[in-house]
This record gives sequence, structure tokens and C-alpha cells, in this order.
Amino acid sequence: MTEPDFSRGVDGMLPAIAQDINTHQVLMFAWMNREAYLETVASGFATYFSRSRNRLWRKGEESGHRQRVSELRIDCDADCILIVVEQTGAACHEGYASCFFRKLHDHQFVIDQSVLIDPKDAYQSPHG
Amino acid sequence: MTEPDFSRGVDGMLPAIAQDINTHQVLMFAWMNREAYLETVASGFATYFSRSRNRLWRKGEESGHRQRVSELRIDCDADCILIVVEQTGAACHEGYASCFFRKLHDHQFVIDQSVLIDPKDAYQSPHG
Repeated sequence: MTEPDFSRGVDGMLPAIAQDINTHQVLMFAWMNREAYLETVASGFATYFSRSRNRLWRKGEESGHRQRVSELRIDCDADCILIVVEQTGAACHEGYASCFFRKLHDHQFVIDQSVLIDPKDAYQSPHG
Repeated sequence: MTEPDFSRGVDGMLPAIAQDINTHQVLMFAWMNREAYLETVASGFATYFSRSRNRLWRKGEESGHRQRVSELRIDCDADCILIVVEQTGAACHEGYASCFFRKLHDHQFVIDQSVLIDPKDAYQSPHG
């Protein structure tokens, strides 16, 4: 097999999960169309498809918080992509290392991680 | 916030990622609708929505390879769920610990993990 099965995607996009190579934290979830996937492979840096901006999203293009891809995996059905990355800065646009900074506790989601970077220092716009 | 934002889902379903509490491996990717999510929270065991069977899928209902939920997290947009689980047996219906047993190497996906359990011993049907 040479590439994921984009015919199984949602509007041509497959789910993509980024995991930190050092901390093993799941950092974020996003989508890749075939173009984003091919650019990720060619460049060695995570590129997603931004549904809100309807264009390729080179992760960190604004903030500098890029993800260098160390491993790229697909699942048994070849319809989900896992990248293991070296994360520069913070994966989350809210400044947390991981987007999954809220944990269910007593029927409420509570923040149990610390902000690494003030988002105001990294972004002009809400995502990047 | 008391629950994920299912209004942001795909046909009412949100992406769900399962990670192993011990090995930190990303085990699998699946979907949860609100009913699957509420059952996951209430039972303490991962329940997904199977798109192929169009019904709730109590992970391990056939194979016994259940996932006891230790942590449940949501991402910054509250539209992706991460569960950290104690996995019984193998997460993948092909018998691998993780569904992500294929890694990109020289433009080919190659298997770099070992089968833990013979799928023939666990399943009557292809998924479970």
C-alpha cells in the first residue's frame, strides 16, 4: 500500500491525529485531504486541510508552531492517519501543549494543564 | 462545559481517539454519537457508533477486548473526544495491539508491529 484510502474520507478528507514524539501526548486532531497528505510527506511538516478556511493549512504557518513529522502511520482500514511529531511551541491555538487540555471530572470538563505560550504572542487570527 | 458539542459533528458523530494508559500508544480511531458518548460515561467502557453496522458498538462486545475508560478528554473546540483506556486483549480486529500497525517507509506502508492475538480466536465477524 502506498497511500491512505481517501475514497473512504469525509468529503475527501481523512481524520489525522498528531502525537508528540517525546511526551506521547495526543496533541490535536485535524483533517487531511490528499493534497495535504502529499505535502506532509514531501515537506516533512504537518499540513492539514482547514475546513473553516477551506484551504491547506500548513500547521504553524502563522505562529511558527510547526510539527516536524517523525513517523506517519495509517490504521487497519487505511482511513485514518497518525503522525508522530516534534512539536515546536504549543500545538493548541489556546497556548496549551495539547488541544486535549480538558478532562471530564464529576460530570464537568475541567482544565488540568497549564498554558505554555500566551496565544496573543503567537497569533493575529484565532487559529494557526 | 458538561459535554462535547455534538452539533459540530459529522452526521451527529464526533471523532473519538483511544490511547492506551500504559503504553501511551494511540490504539484506534472511531466515532461517537451522543448516545455512544453517554453510554461510555455511564458504563465506564468505550462505546462507539459503528457506521458500517449503523448501531451502537460496545467495543469488545464480541471479542471481549473491552476498553475501560480511565480519562475522557475533549479538545479546544469540544468537537473531538480522547479516551485514555485500559485495553483488554488487542484494540485492532486484525489482532494488533493498535490499529496503527503500518508505518510509512520509503513511500510504502509496512507493518512494524506484531500480532498479539489471532483474530480467528476472537471474532465471528470482521469487526468487534
